[in-house]
Amino acid sequence: MKHLNTQSPDFQAELKALLAFETAQDPKIDQIVAGICADVQQRGDAAVVEYTNRFDGMAAQSMADLTLTQAELQNAFERLPADVQTALKTAAERVERYHLRQKLESWTYTDADGTLLGQQITALDRVGIYVPGGKAAYPSSVIMNAMPAHVAGVQEIIMVVPTPKGGRNDIVLAAAYIAGVTKVFTIGGAQAVAALAYGTETVPQVDKITGPGNAFVAAAKRRVFGVVGIDMVAGPSEILVIADGSTPADWVAMDLFSQAEHDEIAQAILIATSQAYLDDVQTAMNRLIGEMPRRAIIEASLRNRGAFILAEDLNEACEIANYIAPEHLELSVENPQQWAQKIRHAGAIFMGSYTSESLGDYCAGPNHVLPTSRTARFSSPLGTYDFQKRSSLIQVSEAGAQKLGKTAATLAHGEMLTAHARAAELRLKD
Amino acid sequence: MKHLNTQSPDFQAELKALLAFETAQDPKIDQIVAGICADVQQRGDAAVVEYTNRFDGMAAQSMADLTLTQAELQNAFERLPADVQTALKTAAERVERYHLRQKLESWTYTDADGTLLGQQITALDRVGIYVPGGKAAYPSSVIMNAMPAHVAGVQEIIMVVPTPKGGRNDIVLAAAYIAGVTKVFTIGGAQAVAALAYGTETVPQVDKITGPGNAFVAAAKRRVFGVVGIDMVAGPSEILVIADGSTPADWVAMDLFSQAEHDEIAQAILIATSQAYLDDVQTAMNRLIGEMPRRAIIEASLRNRGAFILAEDLNEACEIANYIAPEHLELSVENPQQWAQKIRHAGAIFMGSYTSESLGDYCAGPNHVLPTSRTARFSSPLGTYDFQKRSSLIQVSEAGAQKLGKTAATLAHGEMLTAHARAAELRLKD
Repeated sequence: MKHLNTQSPDFQAELKALLAFETAQDPKIDQIVAGICADVQQRGDAAVVEYTNRFDGMAAQSMADLTLTQAELQNAFERLPADVQTALKTAAERVERYHLRQKLESWTYTDADGTLLGQQITALDRVGIYVPGGKAAYPSSVIMNAMPAHVAGVQEIIMVVPTPKGGRNDIVLAAAYIAGVTKVFTIGGAQAVAALAYGTETVPQVDKITGPGNAFVAAAKRRVFGVVGIDMVAGPSEILVIADGSTPADWVAMDLFSQAEHDEIAQAILIATSQAYLDDVQTAMNRLIGEMPRRAIIEASLRNRGAFILAEDLNEACEIANYIAPEHLELSVENPQQWAQKIRHAGAIFMGSYTSESLGDYCAGPNHVLPTSRTARFSSPLGTYDFQKRSSLIQVSEAGAQKLGKTAATLAHGEMLTAHARAAELRLKD
Repeated sequence: MKHLNTQSPDFQAELKALLAFETAQDPKIDQIVAGICADVQQRGDAAVVEYTNRFDGMAAQSMADLTLTQAELQNAFERLPADVQTALKTAAERVERYHLRQKLESWTYTDADGTLLGQQITALDRVGIYVPGGKAAYPSSVIMNAMPAHVAGVQEIIMVVPTPKGGRNDIVLAAAYIAGVTKVFTIGGAQAVAALAYGTETVPQVDKITGPGNAFVAAAKRRVFGVVGIDMVAGPSEILVIADGSTPADWVAMDLFSQAEHDEIAQAILIATSQAYLDDVQTAMNRLIGEMPRRAIIEASLRNRGAFILAEDLNEACEIANYIAPEHLELSVENPQQWAQKIRHAGAIFMGSYTSESLGDYCAGPNHVLPTSRTARFSSPLGTYDFQKRSSLIQVSEAGAQKLGKTAATLAHGEMLTAHARAAELRLKD
């Protein structure tokens, strides 16, 4: 754990160094991915089957061997213990209810001259959800990606999930069943992204691809961006906790661990207004670390990228939060809503002692796909709105065309675009 | 002009060929841009001044020579003829009024157990607007990019516009004055994009960059995406007109010209339900082309990428429109609102005879920055919402933590994330 103090003359430089993270794209990975994408675009299913057999240790004869039916998803759900079934259902219901509030609706208004203006909101036709396989199989990620699309009204939600050596994860498939996924292909990597982006004989072309993946998946998503929409390419996960000392130190210690256990490059930072509280949290961490099965990962993460920051007061802490623009911000303070108003940049704001980040990760309702690496300065949590889009609506009345036509023609002539001007002028009565 | 008929057995293939457009990125341009970006990131102002002098034929000593004051913008406005001043003001006011309707507002709701959920909406702090210089100087583009940011509440709107050989465009600067731009630098190209993305001694780092540019600008925007937000990298502009014959053929002919006059790769397509009407429009085009100063560009565009499509009926025409997902769609038909409901994918829908695209380009109110190249399948017009972002709000009550904690812990254990589970369990009372 690094220790920073806002009163140090080097604080700004130390903070910048703490946040620095090299996100350079590997040209070697890019080249491999370019080859795979081109091959899938050209040869379709045959290429997808070959890459899947090679990279995932499968022995598929055709895409039929890599396609799951709705019945298989349902069976996976029914094989689960009752408490897990209930937990999945509860989480999905809460996420659905929250995301219904985000649904955009069409709107119009009419000018005094009868001209109608507005926007028509429609759902995307078909989207692809990428779900990582293997060791990091996250059913919560299936719910968080598929449910907003389902709520938006997307008719076809295609999930891809690699099953290395044929190993399927029942909870992941059950989550797909619960979250409204319409079709699952057991493929992954750049080949799965390319199949969704370009379409193959079996895999339908989608309009947008969301969901996390490794460096090959990220490079493939960057490559197909423009052909289809993509969500952000995510960086390492981060938490910033601001504490005024009112939350038990054990709780905060465990919240920092829950971020650090993701991987060695995850970042957990605690800002407190007293050294005594920072010491209490350190003591709690020393005591609790022994209980953690992922101890080695937690320790590496905290050593590499973790920090304690001692701030003068909560105002200063909020200013630092706005600079960091953290993915997750816990305001573990009294009157948290008052302090939340001072936060301009954060993916999600967890307010008060009882709001552990992990409640939000799974089932509070809001999405856990959040902007990382300071991108909360300009981007938002994944939401229903990411699976809807807008078309401008314009119906100019005859009277409106008289007024607007003169303005448009003047400006068009100023831009030397005569046909633009003439198109407006032809609609003028005299 | 190509002629397609939906009854032809080759129609689908012909339509696909018509829309095909090679958007491959030039690796040579990418390499040059990578060098410029790295140089600006490292050397700041000095590099920006050097590139500007070299590429734009300037003789600046420092960034001070490349900075315009608010007074200079005002002077540019005051030098304009009265009718142009009025047209700019009218356009800006209408665009402002429309974009105010798009402003997102924070929202929350509270569960029965006292848990509060919602989203806090904030504006971006600072954005950059890229405005091309030289021959294609578009004041309308300044208004369409800056006004939504201004309406969103962005505090600093930094415009960059190259002034090759020192030539400044008064209308462009006047538009900046009217649209709420806070600062202008007379720089362009990849060096301007890099300066905005990384910040220099003089140019403040922004959170998002929008606005059109040449291949170097587009490559630079792609490169800095992630460090800052960007709008879409736009392809060639397109219009699709669906006509039932109720609009004078001259008007439709001029609307097709107004798209074609942008450049040789712009695309203008007309779908009609009768051959006679297509013939009328062709006759009108033959008659009107002589009046067009940009005749050569129009003819090249129509020859390369223009088309007439004969459809069976308006239902079929709308299906084709949904496949094309055009940037601009004119429904030049009776009862256009009824047909608009069948449109799932279009950047902007212009309804009825009087609604020429050019009215929307300048002053109807909606934005003229629209998704091109079929990306209306998954993206939206530039809007106020592009300069706002959301932070999830979660405040779990003590009672809520008891209920949610069990669900979260069950799912976290299922993902082998023990610290996530423990963080939830520590908040349980028993």
